[in-house]
Amino acid sequence: MDVQDFFPVWAQLTPQQQKILTQSAIRRSIPKGTTLHSGSTECTGLLLVCSGQLRAFILSDEGREITLYRLFERDICLFSASCMLRSMQFEIMIAAEKDTELFVIPADVYQSVARESAPAANFTTEIMAGRFSEVMWLMEQIMWKSFDRRLARFLLDESALEGTAVLHLTHETIANHLGTAREVVTRMLRYFQSEGLVRLSRGAVELSNHSGLEVLADA
Amino acid sequence: MDVQDFFPVWAQLTPQQQKILTQSAIRRSIPKGTTLHSGSTECTGLLLVCSGQLRAFILSDEGREITLYRLFERDICLFSASCMLRSMQFEIMIAAEKDTELFVIPADVYQSVARESAPAANFTTEIMAGRFSEVMWLMEQIMWKSFDRRLARFLLDESALEGTAVLHLTHETIANHLGTAREVVTRMLRYFQSEGLVRLSRGAVELSNHSGLEVLADA
Repeated sequence: MDVQDFFPVWAQLTPQQQKILTQSAIRRSIPKGTTLHSGSTECTGLLLVCSGQLRAFILSDEGREITLYRLFERDICLFSASCMLRSMQFEIMIAAEKDTELFVIPADVYQSVARESAPAANFTTEIMAGRFSEVMWLMEQIMWKSFDRRLARFLLDESALEGTAVLHLTHETIANHLGTAREVVTRMLRYFQSEGLVRLSRGAVELSNHSGLEVLADA
Repeated sequence: MDVQDFFPVWAQLTPQQQKILTQSAIRRSIPKGTTLHSGSTECTGLLLVCSGQLRAFILSDEGREITLYRLFERDICLFSASCMLRSMQFEIMIAAEKDTELFVIPADVYQSVARESAPAANFTTEIMAGRFSEVMWLMEQIMWKSFDRRLARFLLDESALEGTAVLHLTHETIANHLGTAREVVTRMLRYFQSEGLVRLSRGAVELSNHSGLEVLADA
């Protein structure tokens, strides 16, 4: 993948702007487990995901996490370049969940292009609107869906993402994704097991009744 | 206030763009209590608040509400024009909490200007980043602050906003603001009263120990 593949507005940029973006982009290979960006560190830049998987999450003072959204192939991470936005005043963490290939475009370079180019600036707005929508969806889940439904949905989504019915996830990890405590996850998974929805073994959760989980998730 | 007072980038717009925005803006007086925009209705347009107060909130299927943020004099409401953003896929409600004077700029007019003008498009991104930051703050409150702290913070904010220590709010209204049930609010307010933090009377909550509430809110 090339830098231009990430920008639907590429043809509306000037040759000079295209050149600036292409030449400033740095290709990087990020091993699974790496924290790419944390709210407190300097401005990492725009991340263009060529392959792999990134996770955006927030972190409480006590170390609790909530997954906000995932970034996949062809996705652009804007919030790792949040220094270019004066009004962006929250701290986000970005970590590689799989080995990831990506381009980094320095924030000041991207900003210089967006400052001149209405198509680039409008594209930036669209990216942000998409992430905002995902976060609003999550907030509605948190506020208005009971935890059994959220957990069922999470297991189904992970299963689809990994292409397997056996998820190698600890209860601690699931708790971090869902912003809750390990005990809450353990209790609910045991309930799911008693209902025949999952089978639990050391470090793994097997989805044994996919349609049952679907019914619960959509309840 | 004039339309130009809302746009810090006004001087960077062309005379033609300035004229389009000025001429398309419709001045409206909105009585307190009016719902200006609901996710399901058509695209209301960009709202420029001259005076008064708007509330942005989301609404569950069961009719529960959560206040996302308030808009005051000089604020711009972007989400009432969300039809101009393909990626904006959540439903927001906007209501007048006080008698409000505002300008409405039709979404298609604003979009036509932003499409041509990089300063206008970048300004749009900044507005969205600001609202996004407010919503992320709220999410952290919901996830990680216990309800006593959230309620204390809410009472203090309302008191500052209204310029009075006596808030004329029902428990039901407070519950809607905080996305919880009336019983939860009533229980916590009684606890606050027993701690000498507030005094309760029919339809009103008086803040009797401001600094005590501050300590709790920041705990």
